[in-house]
Amino acid sequence: MPTLLILTRDADKYERRIVSAQLPGLELTSDPAQSDIVLGEPKLIQDALPRLSSLKWVQAIYAGVEPLVDPTQRHDYILTNARGVFGGPMSEYVFGYLLFHEKRVLERIQAQQSMQWQRGESGLLRGKTIGLLGVGSIGAHIAATAKHFGMTVRGFTRESDSSADVDQYFHGTDLLKFVEGLDYLVCILPRTEGTNQIVDSKLLAALPPHAVFVNVGRGNAVDEPALVKALNEGKLAVAVLDVFEKEPLPEGHPFWTTPNLYMTFHTSAISYPEDIAKLFIENYQLYLAGKPLKYVVDFERGY
Amino acid sequence: MPTLLILTRDADKYERRIVSAQLPGLELTSDPAQSDIVLGEPKLIQDALPRLSSLKWVQAIYAGVEPLVDPTQRHDYILTNARGVFGGPMSEYVFGYLLFHEKRVLERIQAQQSMQWQRGESGLLRGKTIGLLGVGSIGAHIAATAKHFGMTVRGFTRESDSSADVDQYFHGTDLLKFVEGLDYLVCILPRTEGTNQIVDSKLLAALPPHAVFVNVGRGNAVDEPALVKALNEGKLAVAVLDVFEKEPLPEGHPFWTTPNLYMTFHTSAISYPEDIAKLFIENYQLYLAGKPLKYVVDFERGY
Repeated sequence: MPTLLILTRDADKYERRIVSAQLPGLELTSDPAQSDIVLGEPKLIQDALPRLSSLKWVQAIYAGVEPLVDPTQRHDYILTNARGVFGGPMSEYVFGYLLFHEKRVLERIQAQQSMQWQRGESGLLRGKTIGLLGVGSIGAHIAATAKHFGMTVRGFTRESDSSADVDQYFHGTDLLKFVEGLDYLVCILPRTEGTNQIVDSKLLAALPPHAVFVNVGRGNAVDEPALVKALNEGKLAVAVLDVFEKEPLPEGHPFWTTPNLYMTFHTSAISYPEDIAKLFIENYQLYLAGKPLKYVVDFERGY
Repeated sequence: MPTLLILTRDADKYERRIVSAQLPGLELTSDPAQSDIVLGEPKLIQDALPRLSSLKWVQAIYAGVEPLVDPTQRHDYILTNARGVFGGPMSEYVFGYLLFHEKRVLERIQAQQSMQWQRGESGLLRGKTIGLLGVGSIGAHIAATAKHFGMTVRGFTRESDSSADVDQYFHGTDLLKFVEGLDYLVCILPRTEGTNQIVDSKLLAALPPHAVFVNVGRGNAVDEPALVKALNEGKLAVAVLDVFEKEPLPEGHPFWTTPNLYMTFHTSAISYPEDIAKLFIENYQLYLAGKPLKYVVDFERGY
C-alpha cells in the first residue's frame, strides 16, 4: 500500500487537497520508516533521509532541490521536482520589474511628490531584445510573454532549443555573443557546478550599459563583487535580484546599498499548495500505474 | 494633385518618413490654403481651420480629437484619427502599474533601505478579474495581455462586443453589475458627453476596497472629488491616473497629495512618428484610390 509522508510547513494545506482527491490506495503516515513516498521541502526531507528506510519516491515542492542532489546524500530513490508551475508567477515578476524600469515609475512618483507636471517619454518593451540564460519551462514562459510584448528573444542553453518563442539560441562558448546588444538579461539557471559565476566581469562588460539584469535563478550564477563594481561604475543600468549566494543576504553585504540594485527576498515565485498538490496527484497516478513520473531530477546533472 | 500640410512639433520626422515612402502624386506644402490633406496635432489643426480653404481630409496623430469634433468647429471634411497603434504601449503602462502594485515593489524597496530580509507573498495577476471601461482597439489589446496573464476579462461598452479576449460584456444600465467584484478597473473611454463622470461615487462604492483603478482614457470620465474621498477613506486600494479633467494638473489640486494615488502626466502612450506615418501612408493610398479611409471619426459621436 503506497504510504505518503508530508514534510512541509504547509502540511495541512497539502493534506486537505490530497485527501479530498481520494487517491486510490494512498495512506498517509507521520512515520518516516513507513513511507515509500514523501512530498515536501528539500531541506526537511534531507534531514529525514536517514530515517526514510522504505523510500521510493520524493516529490519536492520547489524547483530547486540542492539539499537532495548534494553528492554526500543518498540517491537511491526517484526524485521529482516542481516544474511547469512557476512560469506564470516568474514571468509576472520579471516583466513587473522591466516595466517598472521602462515606465520610470520611481521618477514619476518623485515628480508627483515635488508637484511637477513631468512630461518626457517612457521606454517601451516593444522592439527590445531580451536574453534568457537558461530556457526550461520557466524560460519558455518568459519567452512567450516577451513575444506578446513584441520583443526579440535570445536563449542560452547547454543544448536544448525547444521553445518556439526563442528567436535565436546560443550554446557553449557563444556566451559573450549571446549577451552582445541585449537590453535585458534574465538568469533562470539552476544551481549546478556548471553555472557557478557564469555572470562574471567579462559577461557584465559585454552587456550594453543601458541593460537591465534580472536574476530569478540561483545566486551562485553571479560573481557578486563584479556585479557591485559594474553598477557602481555605471556599466550596467539596473540589477534586479531575487536570489543570492547566501540567503538571507548577510548584514553588511554591499548589495543592500548598491545604487540601481533592486532586491527582493527569494519571493519571485512561491510554491502554491494548489499548484503543487495538483502536480503530486498527477504524478501519483503515474506512480500507481508503474509509469515514468514527470519532472524527474537527474542527480548527476543536478536539475 | 493631393497636397499635404504637416502641422506637428515633430514635422521633420513625419516629413522624412513620408518623403522616403515616395507616395504617388503627393506634394508637400506649407501654405494652408493650398492643402487638401493635413496631418498633425488636433489643437494646431483647429487653429489653422479658418485658413484651410481646400481641406478634404485630416489625419490626426492622436487618438483624442476633441478640438476638431468640438461642435463650434467646421466638420466639412473627413477626419481620421490614430488607432491601432496605442494598444501595445497602453498595455505596457497598465500592466506595469498593476504588477508594480501586486509585486509590492515599493515595500520591497523600503525593506531593502532598512536592510530587512522581508519574505511575504507577492500578489498575482493570474486568476484576477479586470474590467475594461471602453473596449476599442486599445481595450482589445489590454484584454489580450490580461488573457496572457491568466486573468478573467470583463468589458463595458455602449454596444460593441467584438473582442474575443473579453469573457463577458456589459452595456447600458449594467454598469454597477460590471464593476462588482473587480480586482482592477481600467478606464479607456474617449471624452464625450456620454462619458462625463461615469466613474462617480456610486461606481467607486461598488468596487471592492482592494481594487485598483487605472485611468488611461480621458479625465472627464472621473468625478475627481469622489475619487479623492474614496482613496482617503480606504474604499479603493490604489488609483493610477494618466489623464485629468484639467491638464497640466493645477497647482494645489488634491490629487498631488492623495494617498495611494499614482500620477503620470499624459505619458502612458505617445504618438511615435514611425507608427503614425505608417498609418498615414496606408490611408493616403486609400484616399488616392477613392476608397473609404480607415479610422474615420464620427463628428456626432465624438470618436
